[in-house]
Amino acid sequence: MNRTTRTQLRRLPKRGRHDSATINAILDAGFLAHVGFHIDGQPFVIPTLFGRDGGKLYLHGSAASRMLGELAQGIPACVTVTLIDGLVLARSAFHHSMNYRSVVAFGTARKIDDSPQKQNALRVISEHLIRGRWDDVREPNAKELKATSVLEFQIEEASAKIRQGPPLDDEEDYVLPMWAGVLPLKLSAGTPAADERMAPGTAVPSYLADFSAMH
Amino acid sequence: MNRTTRTQLRRLPKRGRHDSATINAILDAGFLAHVGFHIDGQPFVIPTLFGRDGGKLYLHGSAASRMLGELAQGIPACVTVTLIDGLVLARSAFHHSMNYRSVVAFGTARKIDDSPQKQNALRVISEHLIRGRWDDVREPNAKELKATSVLEFQIEEASAKIRQGPPLDDEEDYVLPMWAGVLPLKLSAGTPAADERMAPGTAVPSYLADFSAMH
Repeated sequence: MNRTTRTQLRRLPKRGRHDSATINAILDAGFLAHVGFHIDGQPFVIPTLFGRDGGKLYLHGSAASRMLGELAQGIPACVTVTLIDGLVLARSAFHHSMNYRSVVAFGTARKIDDSPQKQNALRVISEHLIRGRWDDVREPNAKELKATSVLEFQIEEASAKIRQGPPLDDEEDYVLPMWAGVLPLKLSAGTPAADERMAPGTAVPSYLADFSAMH
Repeated sequence: MNRTTRTQLRRLPKRGRHDSATINAILDAGFLAHVGFHIDGQPFVIPTLFGRDGGKLYLHGSAASRMLGELAQGIPACVTVTLIDGLVLARSAFHHSMNYRSVVAFGTARKIDDSPQKQNALRVISEHLIRGRWDDVREPNAKELKATSVLEFQIEEASAKIRQGPPLDDEEDYVLPMWAGVLPLKLSAGTPAADERMAPGTAVPSYLADFSAMH
């Protein structure tokens, strides 16, 4: 991927990564992106699910979605994915931090009109979120496909930032008596709640248990 | 708060809320924001911690931060906070969804230069994240305050979106045999990991246990 001033970190360059393996691992561990664009000078940041296929991300939503309609014009966009790994509690307020992994990706989107390509992109998004689910469900019909907009966002340039590990305090603060360390954080799945209208005894699919391992 | 075309939902208006109580409850349950702005037409979306004080959000970071430097110019910005509550598994691919709460807030920022105000804003950010921590730690000294930029983001307009509850399938799909329901998701705290250089036996503060109740 290219590297320009858009993705050069001015601070703490040791936290920055530009290799595709690191970037893709973070994108694949996430499933929610925050998409940025602007209309008439006003920036918007909208949360949305996504899928990844190589250096492309797929976004989808209603055909009436303002965000997708604007992005489909090929305007410059930014897609950011952030994973929260923990709170870093230092002895000083100043050295408090967060353990996280994030990717900021720049590029432009185009609309996918071809139905098989659209169907494939929806499958990629679904599998990115819950691997195995797509084969279980009723696939979109022609009417649903028409009501759905699917965009292909080509990553032109991306950078990752990662902060891991314990607090790093000033040397003279290590004698201070307060608790210091990391509170690990993770998006965790609870017990699946079966829909009331489902036939009793329908087994919970194994891919729901795999979700936490994927994300 | 004002309401213009920026915050009018075109789709699913039943998911939209504009009352301050709903908006503030979501902002307070979150602690990570995605901040959007643009430089020379290029949008950026950057994750950052924040605190709330009435209709203002505080952001902070290094005095060398590009994001804070740009935002301090008073350029239009968007601050989005998203809480993930669950995956909604429907019988059809089309009706899959996510349970979530989100706020999209528009406004502009200004830099806080006054030291006591700056210190107060940092306390607000810290208390927003982990209530009780600030009183335990060494407060910022003059040098650290100087190395820190603190911005006050005035919310001019904001909207919330909330999706909760079970999948809503097409009536004819309810007879299909696959599992359907909700996989609840929550950002959960693990066991606090004490810093290796801390005196053994230092008690884990109670506010770490409160963190999950707050967020």
